[in-house]
Amino acid sequence: MVLVNPQLGENIGMAARAMLNCGIIDLRLVKPRAAWLNDKAIAAAAGAGAVLERARVFETTAEAVADLQRVYAATGRPRHMTKKVATPRHAAKDMRAFASQGAYDGGRCGVIFGRESRGLDNDDIALADAIVMIPLNPAFCSMNLAQSVMVVAYEWFQAADGAPESTITMPKDTRPANKAELVNLFEHLERELDDCGFLRVKEKRPIMVQNLRNLFQRANMTEQEARTLHGVIKGLSTKWKS
Amino acid sequence: MVLVNPQLGENIGMAARAMLNCGIIDLRLVKPRAAWLNDKAIAAAAGAGAVLERARVFETTAEAVADLQRVYAATGRPRHMTKKVATPRHAAKDMRAFASQGAYDGGRCGVIFGRESRGLDNDDIALADAIVMIPLNPAFCSMNLAQSVMVVAYEWFQAADGAPESTITMPKDTRPANKAELVNLFEHLERELDDCGFLRVKEKRPIMVQNLRNLFQRANMTEQEARTLHGVIKGLSTKWKS
Repeated sequence: MVLVNPQLGENIGMAARAMLNCGIIDLRLVKPRAAWLNDKAIAAAAGAGAVLERARVFETTAEAVADLQRVYAATGRPRHMTKKVATPRHAAKDMRAFASQGAYDGGRCGVIFGRESRGLDNDDIALADAIVMIPLNPAFCSMNLAQSVMVVAYEWFQAADGAPESTITMPKDTRPANKAELVNLFEHLERELDDCGFLRVKEKRPIMVQNLRNLFQRANMTEQEARTLHGVIKGLSTKWKS
Repeated sequence: MVLVNPQLGENIGMAARAMLNCGIIDLRLVKPRAAWLNDKAIAAAAGAGAVLERARVFETTAEAVADLQRVYAATGRPRHMTKKVATPRHAAKDMRAFASQGAYDGGRCGVIFGRESRGLDNDDIALADAIVMIPLNPAFCSMNLAQSVMVVAYEWFQAADGAPESTITMPKDTRPANKAELVNLFEHLERELDDCGFLRVKEKRPIMVQNLRNLFQRANMTEQEARTLHGVIKGLSTKWKS
């Protein structure tokens, strides 16, 4: 579970407790409020202090998800993006199925959650494969951060025994690309698109970059394919430089 | 939702918020701690203050459930009782089915939760038709009160409708690309890759083309995105020609 910019120690502690309730111990924090490991966090963890102690802190969301191969972004409101949106139940089944395909270096999955006041930025969402949205009362769908973690963790735990509903076939000698490899690919593409002037309109650049990242996230690329696309970008762009 | 002997205003407030998230507004408190309606409760309710305001306080659990026709008791540990034990999912379906049988004066259902430190007394449980127990990590199943309310309320809400488990959101002004548009895009890419020499190894060309097409097919592109990629390919490749 990856919490981006969490502000309240209580919420971090309660999230840790909810995670351990559901057998999840890998907590990652992106730029939490400075004094996050406070008495309130420890009290709220109520016995799940070990999850807090082993929590890792990162500077950016991209670093926090770098080793993951499947990432869901939790959000409470629709975004103007072309992206798969799943219920927590569906997302849990999907992640269980993915993780059970251990051949791919562990099938590493994660869910990112935004800060209490305003959720995730679109740039964070563009790092994810899909969105997980909890179906709630449309008249009051503002949910506490730790409660969101609880529901997602709960569904993960409930999905434990179910056989996978669908899988993706893939050649034996490759594995799903992890997020570090994808971000590396995105940055290669964006650098070349800056160079050739495609991204020259400054105010449009962020949304163009988000859209391209979302598009490529949906392709569920293998590590091999990411390397192929590096070659494609290089092939298309180098000749005019030489 | 009936909270028996709740001690912390924060938990009552968070429970109210979780209830309203799931469209539930009838909160009942049995002998709460004296000053329960405090600032912490109101802050934790975060917009669900109306649920707190209309909460009713009772002296005994029996009075609190007097008008209900089906009652589940939430507990985290097995009791030495002969009593049905359901998961929250099963309990939610059962209560939905019961509530829909309007003949019984509305099919009034409720769930009782015990105090933070030790849960429900066996006397309280004996007032219930059945037990609802949340399947959790057996090594750490002590759950926060408001988190328990969240999970039960969440399952109640999910049992309501047959919403699809996953969809793809997409901006209003676009539509999925059709295959003609995709093939057009593929051919544009392949033409440029032939030109720059990326596909020069003749015996490898067919498999490379297949792999690239498969990769882009998986992205479920919109028509707008296909046009963006035409621009990307053109941007990357034209400069060296001019």
